[in-house]
Amino acid sequence: MSASHSRAHDLTRGGSLVPAWVKQASRAVLNPIVRGALAIGLTANAITVLGLLVTVAAAVVIGSGALLAGAAILLAGSALDAVDGAIARANGGGTAFGSFLDSTLDRASEAILYLGVAAFLLRFVTDPMLPVLGVMAALAGSFLVSYAHARAQGIGLEASVGLAPRTERLVIIIAGIALAGLGWLPGLLGAIGLVAILTVVTAIQRIWHVYRSTAAAATAHANDITEHGDQRG
Amino acid sequence: MSASHSRAHDLTRGGSLVPAWVKQASRAVLNPIVRGALAIGLTANAITVLGLLVTVAAAVVIGSGALLAGAAILLAGSALDAVDGAIARANGGGTAFGSFLDSTLDRASEAILYLGVAAFLLRFVTDPMLPVLGVMAALAGSFLVSYAHARAQGIGLEASVGLAPRTERLVIIIAGIALAGLGWLPGLLGAIGLVAILTVVTAIQRIWHVYRSTAAAATAHANDITEHGDQRG
Repeated sequence: MSASHSRAHDLTRGGSLVPAWVKQASRAVLNPIVRGALAIGLTANAITVLGLLVTVAAAVVIGSGALLAGAAILLAGSALDAVDGAIARANGGGTAFGSFLDSTLDRASEAILYLGVAAFLLRFVTDPMLPVLGVMAALAGSFLVSYAHARAQGIGLEASVGLAPRTERLVIIIAGIALAGLGWLPGLLGAIGLVAILTVVTAIQRIWHVYRSTAAAATAHANDITEHGDQRG
Repeated sequence: MSASHSRAHDLTRGGSLVPAWVKQASRAVLNPIVRGALAIGLTANAITVLGLLVTVAAAVVIGSGALLAGAAILLAGSALDAVDGAIARANGGGTAFGSFLDSTLDRASEAILYLGVAAFLLRFVTDPMLPVLGVMAALAGSFLVSYAHARAQGIGLEASVGLAPRTERLVIIIAGIALAGLGWLPGLLGAIGLVAILTVVTAIQRIWHVYRSTAAAATAHANDITEHGDQRG
């Protein structure tokens, strides 16, 4: 009866951390779960919050040193990414608030994951200075990429360009956590450095993309003025 | 002659880290600098990038342990916040790209400042675990506050509510850095903890605010449908 659910909204609800084919296969498995969640009245937003709580659990487990268990929890939690979207669609399309909540909590999830990785490094690595600064750079770079995207949308532009959207950077970090859990710490350190570099480059790409887009719009606008003799712009 | 500068844009170019009366007084001092920058053709965007470079310098100085010098550089750099806005206005109003660049580099500046503080803690504090995790939480919370704001604007809402906009959190962190530089480390640790708590609370406030705003809009929309008998919404 509520009008809020009838307003279908552009539903680009946060990327998943798994490739498309895994996602499709998992959706087949997840369909009964989606139906069950719908039956007991769980909303897409409740699932989104649940996804955040799973990440908190994974971060605590990683910070305690149980890296493989943490990576497994993160992988299981990624299923919720698919479920909340499916539930939103089953309810007739996501709401503007659902989209806002999903992407804002995606950022919070990333931050909490990096806090767990930093806690692990601070506790178990002999000289954690560079790795921890790397984690902070990866966190800041990831946020910058998403912030530039949101800010570009605010001025009516699309800025999805770049090497490191959320899916890719999560796959890299989870792989690094798993490698360190198997005893190969350089795998985690390399993953952190890779994400830090990719995200900073992506952020610069997005700034450049917005610059080019606004410059092109201004030129087109200026030509328009010249052609039509409008002095006011 | 360019049309891009004639299109005055809503110019909320990043908060400054000083109170309004200091800002006004400094503007009187800065006016000659603004005129000089205009005379040699420096644009508002060039000043914005210069402000980022000053923060990088401050972060390196802080990371090396010279906290008072770092705090002084940060204060001097804050003047650039006022100058870029003044130059944009003198050039006939800021551009959409200028506004995008300014707020995106504000985020990058905050991240770089926190990296410098974390480097200091990792090098000079005996047990840096909790302080460094606190710095990461403050960084993540600050980003979340700004991200929620940008994301809310993207769906047509204003979400400026909250306890910790950029000005306040920078004042707190710079005061903490100065106190630690004067030999009282708990001042810095307290500042970090305070910013972490304030920003996380502010982020939650903003999410709640967007939830209330969209729920209110949906209710108004539903009432509208009921009154006018429109079934389609």
